[in-house]
Amino acid sequence: MQPTIAVIAPGAMGSGVARRLAEHGAAVPTLLDGRSAATVARARAAGMQAADEAAVAAADIILSIVPPAEALGLAGRLAPALRAAPRKPVYVDCNAVNVATVQAVATIVAPTGAGFADGGIIGGPPVPGGSGPVLYLAGPDAARLGVLRDLGLRLQVLDGPVGAASALKMSYAGITKGLTGLAAAMILGAERNGAGPALHAELAASQPQLLARFGKGLPDMYAKAYRWVAEMREIADFLGPDDPARLIYEGMAGLYERLAADMAGEKRDIAALDAFLDTDKADAAA
Amino acid sequence: MQPTIAVIAPGAMGSGVARRLAEHGAAVPTLLDGRSAATVARARAAGMQAADEAAVAAADIILSIVPPAEALGLAGRLAPALRAAPRKPVYVDCNAVNVATVQAVATIVAPTGAGFADGGIIGGPPVPGGSGPVLYLAGPDAARLGVLRDLGLRLQVLDGPVGAASALKMSYAGITKGLTGLAAAMILGAERNGAGPALHAELAASQPQLLARFGKGLPDMYAKAYRWVAEMREIADFLGPDDPARLIYEGMAGLYERLAADMAGEKRDIAALDAFLDTDKADAAA
Repeated sequence: MQPTIAVIAPGAMGSGVARRLAEHGAAVPTLLDGRSAATVARARAAGMQAADEAAVAAADIILSIVPPAEALGLAGRLAPALRAAPRKPVYVDCNAVNVATVQAVATIVAPTGAGFADGGIIGGPPVPGGSGPVLYLAGPDAARLGVLRDLGLRLQVLDGPVGAASALKMSYAGITKGLTGLAAAMILGAERNGAGPALHAELAASQPQLLARFGKGLPDMYAKAYRWVAEMREIADFLGPDDPARLIYEGMAGLYERLAADMAGEKRDIAALDAFLDTDKADAAA
Repeated sequence: MQPTIAVIAPGAMGSGVARRLAEHGAAVPTLLDGRSAATVARARAAGMQAADEAAVAAADIILSIVPPAEALGLAGRLAPALRAAPRKPVYVDCNAVNVATVQAVATIVAPTGAGFADGGIIGGPPVPGGSGPVLYLAGPDAARLGVLRDLGLRLQVLDGPVGAASALKMSYAGITKGLTGLAAAMILGAERNGAGPALHAELAASQPQLLARFGKGLPDMYAKAYRWVAEMREIADFLGPDDPARLIYEGMAGLYERLAADMAGEKRDIAALDAFLDTDKADAAA
């Protein structure tokens, strides 16, 4: 029988995952009411089918792939249909949310009788010909999700409770997206104080791997900064109220908020970052 | 005539720089009153001579190499002797301080008639046989410091005003010491949530350069964390009150404060970081 894997919603990651599943023979229902024409078109192109909550709840597996702030809301929206479903799916929260949030989602899903797994996606959306991101899974029902491997996804099942996959996602993103934030903050600070070319030259001399990383990572970030704001706040909450390092990620959220506004507006910070990356290091020091 | 280069104080960096200068034939006076027997012994071993403020002010060049919080105080302490000195030295603030602080030091030194340069040291203390750190210099009097090159120091003179060398130092340290802070915060967060081995495995697979860096950078940091607290606060001030990213470095200061206390006490966080670095990545995921 054809496996049915509901994927909500058809964003960049969701539609990429859906296309991979559909190409491997899965039916991929999703929720499209109230979405823009562009989103509906992207979902269709990925092989997804418009469905209502009952049809989503009738799937074998439901993958929740939404912005962090919508993770709890989606579970609440689907809970009545999950409770009514005669055959219960496994609900997988794949979102970049902190451990407490994914535990709260699990608490919403549990009384419906559906299975539940904690998921964390590391890597960019699947692209044709590429291997795609890794979907980390944790929790007792993670072992029931092996069909996703047959459907073209890369799975890693962690030996840990619900929360372990989200903790991995938080800590990995906190390092990689955090490093991009440090670079943006310090390059802009150096440029404001006339030290941009000297910073470029010193990094080229003593930190060439980091400089090469920034040359790709900063431009890749510009269009995603708006999405990273909420993710940085999730990482701050992941660390909890007693960890002094949570302030680091509150600052990151503020930085990405500013960069997102700049990207949508005057692009002055973006231009300064681009100018830094284009610096001819020979100009830096006399 | 033998050049005289005063170096204050004989900390790890100051005594390393002093030894390099003394080995190249300089007289290296310093201030030792009120210092511990260990510090006095370290100064002697580096070839430094105990001196009073007047003897320091009689040097050709004065290198201020002190903890960030002492940069302004040292200038104030030496100002009367500099004013009284018949032949004026060039005072070089080499400290990890923000642009406004080094400008304030310059404002204290200016009325004494002494020259002034902004300095920033990138790299660890000189060690025998090694090339040593780079001393970046900025400001109009930086050109008068070429003798330091003849005395074995690596100089880079920036084409910028007083503040440019400090801005370089702040932005470089904000990236490199900031990255070590991100790693510590996220590894400890992952370990608290059972995701430490999985984070190690994912970094080994997708970020091997970063993981290798952490393997050296984290243990190197433990004993220095107490010094980095003030440096992180200087970086926050370097960004200024309107930059949302300043919060990142306030969080870094809090993190390093906690790690310094742990290093001086129970070493629980230190043990968790060491355990992570020792992780056998084969154990990480099933």
